[in-house]
Amino acid sequence: MVCARLKEMPETAPVLAFALELPSWIPEALAQAPAASASLAEKMRWVIGLSRTNFEKDTGGPFAAAVFEESSGRLVSVGVNRVVPGQCSSAHAEVMALSLAQRARGTHDLGAAGAPAHQIVVNWCPCAMCCGAICWSGVRSVVIAGSGPDLERITGFDEGPIHPTWPEELRRRGIAVSDGLLREEALEAFRAFAASGRTVYNGRRG
Amino acid sequence: MVCARLKEMPETAPVLAFALELPSWIPEALAQAPAASASLAEKMRWVIGLSRTNFEKDTGGPFAAAVFEESSGRLVSVGVNRVVPGQCSSAHAEVMALSLAQRARGTHDLGAAGAPAHQIVVNWCPCAMCCGAICWSGVRSVVIAGSGPDLERITGFDEGPIHPTWPEELRRRGIAVSDGLLREEALEAFRAFAASGRTVYNGRRG
Repeated sequence: MVCARLKEMPETAPVLAFALELPSWIPEALAQAPAASASLAEKMRWVIGLSRTNFEKDTGGPFAAAVFEESSGRLVSVGVNRVVPGQCSSAHAEVMALSLAQRARGTHDLGAAGAPAHQIVVNWCPCAMCCGAICWSGVRSVVIAGSGPDLERITGFDEGPIHPTWPEELRRRGIAVSDGLLREEALEAFRAFAASGRTVYNGRRG
Repeated sequence: MVCARLKEMPETAPVLAFALELPSWIPEALAQAPAASASLAEKMRWVIGLSRTNFEKDTGGPFAAAVFEESSGRLVSVGVNRVVPGQCSSAHAEVMALSLAQRARGTHDLGAAGAPAHQIVVNWCPCAMCCGAICWSGVRSVVIAGSGPDLERITGFDEGPIHPTWPEELRRRGIAVSDGLLREEALEAFRAFAASGRTVYNGRRG
């Protein structure tokens, strides 16, 4: 009897949509974005600067990412961590940057036939979730400032159950991984975050 | 000289926000949601039904998820895959359901102190990204219909580089994992998806 399985609508009807947006200071930061012809190090330095501005202005955690066209070097999108203000635990910098790049391109697949190759530049190793998000995004390469236990040690953020050989897993899917660009500058921003006493917003851990 | 690193705004200004929404048939489906007192199997059957409706109506891939309060059994949110229509490779069913639950609760952390425990019910094993997303969400338990190579074999979807011992990784973070509820019914929906000839929208794979 089907009716026995029906129920009234819940007292509070489920939410059917959500939106995520970058902080209000981003347009100003975009005006100082590195030129398309800038070196990868200059692009990473800008991204690290965004990671620092984001926590200094209390608009999210100390993480930032940007998507560029690989061959032209043009900026396609930028993302910063929006977990707490966006009330969304998935609103990591990489997910923001990738989602905004896809919206800009009008497709879920940045690797679609005929599209220019896309690269994501991030101020640290992606967490378990973002590693998967990068796989699905269609980007062809990932450039990170660093990886390893330093982030967790300095800030207390949990990187989650990332695959033990994730760079090989990405390469197998046609995504190049480059690690160690401006590592010390990235760590310096994390040390500043830790010294600021701001919230580490990991989800509940048992 | 700072000016040398500046550039004009790109020809197309980067997108600063994005929104994701459930399909227009969801309110009708919610009117037939199982009662809070319904068994977990009844809840899973409803979720599997959503996974099937989603591809039949061409509103996304064959995946659905719902978040319930563990003790009351009340529905908090529902999600279906919205990757292609949402132009967002992260818009998997679990990310949709978790983000909408967090929006409904007004916090990024469904495991916040004082909050009721939350459970996510999904029609298959989470992919690498969603496994991480579940870790960050604050849910206390995950119930899946099945796992293993059958989904990939039947449909061609790639599950990505999920951690080889992901259930243990989740348990270590205080998240219980239960696998195998209505496995055959879930596989039946995937077989129907495969037979329908609809798009498998994996990101480019090298």
